[in-house]
Amino acid sequence: MYLLNTTLKKINSVNEELLAAAQKHLDNLTKPPGSLGRLEEFARRLVAITENKSPMLDRKVVFTFAGDHGVTAEGVSAYPKEVTPQMVLNFLRGGAGINVLARHAGAEVAVVDIGVDHDFGNIQGLVHAKVVRGTKNFARTAAMTKEEAVRCIETGISIANGYAKKGYMMFGTGEMGIGNTTPSSAIAAVLTGRTVAEVTGKGTGISDESLENKIRVIEEGLKLNKPDSNDAIDVLAKVGGAEIGGIAGIVLGAAANRVPVVIDGFISTAGALIAYCIEPKTADYMFAAHNSVEIGHKAMLEKMGLEPILDLGLRLGEGTGAALAMLLIEAGLKIYKEMATFGEAGVSAEIVN
Amino acid sequence: MYLLNTTLKKINSVNEELLAAAQKHLDNLTKPPGSLGRLEEFARRLVAITENKSPMLDRKVVFTFAGDHGVTAEGVSAYPKEVTPQMVLNFLRGGAGINVLARHAGAEVAVVDIGVDHDFGNIQGLVHAKVVRGTKNFARTAAMTKEEAVRCIETGISIANGYAKKGYMMFGTGEMGIGNTTPSSAIAAVLTGRTVAEVTGKGTGISDESLENKIRVIEEGLKLNKPDSNDAIDVLAKVGGAEIGGIAGIVLGAAANRVPVVIDGFISTAGALIAYCIEPKTADYMFAAHNSVEIGHKAMLEKMGLEPILDLGLRLGEGTGAALAMLLIEAGLKIYKEMATFGEAGVSAEIVN
Repeated sequence: MYLLNTTLKKINSVNEELLAAAQKHLDNLTKPPGSLGRLEEFARRLVAITENKSPMLDRKVVFTFAGDHGVTAEGVSAYPKEVTPQMVLNFLRGGAGINVLARHAGAEVAVVDIGVDHDFGNIQGLVHAKVVRGTKNFARTAAMTKEEAVRCIETGISIANGYAKKGYMMFGTGEMGIGNTTPSSAIAAVLTGRTVAEVTGKGTGISDESLENKIRVIEEGLKLNKPDSNDAIDVLAKVGGAEIGGIAGIVLGAAANRVPVVIDGFISTAGALIAYCIEPKTADYMFAAHNSVEIGHKAMLEKMGLEPILDLGLRLGEGTGAALAMLLIEAGLKIYKEMATFGEAGVSAEIVN
Repeated sequence: MYLLNTTLKKINSVNEELLAAAQKHLDNLTKPPGSLGRLEEFARRLVAITENKSPMLDRKVVFTFAGDHGVTAEGVSAYPKEVTPQMVLNFLRGGAGINVLARHAGAEVAVVDIGVDHDFGNIQGLVHAKVVRGTKNFARTAAMTKEEAVRCIETGISIANGYAKKGYMMFGTGEMGIGNTTPSSAIAAVLTGRTVAEVTGKGTGISDESLENKIRVIEEGLKLNKPDSNDAIDVLAKVGGAEIGGIAGIVLGAAANRVPVVIDGFISTAGALIAYCIEPKTADYMFAAHNSVEIGHKAMLEKMGLEPILDLGLRLGEGTGAALAMLLIEAGLKIYKEMATFGEAGVSAEIVN
């Protein structure tokens, strides 16, 4: 708990005066005030987050955490769990969606084995940080011990600290783990107070019947494990998963290092919500990448006061939405840094009516 | 009319079989079917539009058409009309929003003087294609003659033909013209059948009182000029403006050359709607960049069956939304071209339930 506790002490809300100063500069650029909408919000927030009047975003990284889930034994996913390690190898070879979109956004991808039920040996390119070999089936028992849950979070914090020290200026979150919409729905239900049915969707594409089963499995798992809705670490331990804990750690580490962090979709948002419930000030550092097709996503974003940037019907995960959103956040920063002011351009700023 | 008529003969609907073949390839990539949402739609449409199984997007251009509007004499805009030529010079120096965002998207900007009430001399970098020195005040008389309206459209077609011949593979539309939300609202009202009040907003930022005046001016202009809602060229002539006609020409030229065209916000969409009402098949070639803050935008997009890609509260115009949307459309194409298939990656494609 030492790293988690010292990290929490470093997290402060962003400075409102810096937000206002950044907006003042934006209002002096050759455009009607506010006419670049959310691009202006992105720029303003980047200035305040980094406490830098001219922030840079040239080094960006998406962390794709991989983990397995014992609850797949209950038939909650459309794919067999072997797909998790197969996709990890696909990430390392550069052939997955996140590789393509991160390249497009000028971001690196760091693939982290935090909980895959597979031995990758010493394979190169993978961040070896396994805490568990898959979580336990939370329909039968707790997914992880509380100690394991804390280790997952601290793994994320350590990775965030390392990348911040190396000069990375924007983080994105992502994940791969067959079955991981199931613990994410469980987390959403417990931490937003909605019913399981209100926050549970079809994941990668299960049938209506399987969706009914998935809801039942989550309801029974929550009844059995009784996660404490006032203790986000308890919730993480009871339902999992390891990759969700890792993402929570990235968010906490980002906030402690004053690095903006782009939260991908449904599962990443479950991780961000764990971080938010531990320390609500983390919301100041988050950008919600997109509006996932998963029905529980919106409730979690509302709880944190975040508005998604994109709405493209994405439901792949991996960090794909985060990579795309980085392109738009960076667009906002470029507006702030590269546009001419009214004075420089000799354009009449005065409004006539 | 010769160029317009020969162009119309070249416009065909896209081939449905190519859409299906592209989706088949997308379904074989290492992701759950359909999980990349609209990125898959973009890829599919690009294949069908270009009739190329491996389209390229390495040369992209945003056309920013500039024109003035006699109707500014009625106090419909927040800015004086001198801002139009001032902003044209800002575009040429690279300091405006469109310059920043086009650079970010890897697109060039072509600035076209199609109707500015200013003599730019032989200034370099500007596409000199002036049809009128500002339109006439449509509250008092027709904005343009029918011949001028056709010349505006044919100017856009000529420019589109030239850039297609030079190998540009994606077009974006944009505009600058103080007062140009006023003719755009007039076009929206006539061609969608809504009332003027339903499609008229505050443009760059006028007061509530000025908005009432703007609505009244448009209503009186329509009463006076009686544009024929079944003749889009008549509508363009009666209310203007030159840049809106140029954009209509770009859209027609794009469709005739099988080049995808990204339509920016409210004013660009008015131009696209003129093109659509001349030839509805042009919709197959259009991408709607974003959902503008201007209230009349949605009605026009619905009329053409287009769904906006972004919703970032933008209302600057110039082509800024189009440049941003190009980044996302290109992301879809990269997914299509660069992701591994299930077979290549050794990932289990079979769904278990």
